[in-house]
Amino acid sequence: MEEYFVAPIGLVHSRLKNLADCPLQEHEGAPEAYLELNPDYQVGLDGIVVGMELVILTWLHLADRNTLKCYMRNERTGGITGVFSTRSPDRPNPIGMHTVTVLEIVNRNTLRVYPLEALDSTPLLDIKPFLNSAK
Amino acid sequence: MEEYFVAPIGLVHSRLKNLADCPLQEHEGAPEAYLELNPDYQVGLDGIVVGMELVILTWLHLADRNTLKCYMRNERTGGITGVFSTRSPDRPNPIGMHTVTVLEIVNRNTLRVYPLEALDSTPLLDIKPFLNSAK
Repeated sequence: MEEYFVAPIGLVHSRLKNLADCPLQEHEGAPEAYLELNPDYQVGLDGIVVGMELVILTWLHLADRNTLKCYMRNERTGGITGVFSTRSPDRPNPIGMHTVTVLEIVNRNTLRVYPLEALDSTPLLDIKPFLNSAK
Repeated sequence: MEEYFVAPIGLVHSRLKNLADCPLQEHEGAPEAYLELNPDYQVGLDGIVVGMELVILTWLHLADRNTLKCYMRNERTGGITGVFSTRSPDRPNPIGMHTVTVLEIVNRNTLRVYPLEALDSTPLLDIKPFLNSAK
């Protein structure tokens, strides 16, 4: 099948500097982070306001893309399962999905958001409004 | 910034054959659809069972990737806004995000799911379990 290219629209800035810093899911203590857009894309942020809930798509650039089976929740006691039944970052197309709230809009091209489980320098692919009825 | 490639893991089969058939959001009448995985990836479906809620990521292959501003809800009365504050399929990295329920598992490599607003032959990028606390 045909392949496609994704072009990052910006970068994550986070105090999470390496994988050992990361909680397993957002609700387990992920910190706030900054989403800095490339100036070419910043006009796309118009309409985003403080307090909005957003879905952030990232490119998990450290992922192992050959993973099809993995352990549940990284625990060897949970059994092995297909990667598509897990949120493992190691997967064929390692697109991270995160629900955050906008805390601040900085300099027109940067959003301060919370919570975000993504390493510092993770490429940012997309930002969408969170829709309760169609997540 | 560095670009990355995505390799479709399969295809959508749907009765939605062209854009005019599509509702604007899933909760406005999207039909059921089949997700057929490339056999190379089907082992990744292990652990998925009927009744599970999944998040499906697709590649919206007909999108205009140069769009940074758009009309809200496709209506000229809603005003123009930044694309990242909308769910427009026309966006720099046109990754579609859909929440569905598994209705049936067919032949080990195909899921029948509902509802899915995606055109027939849309490439499938990823399947993740829906997590209520970390969408």
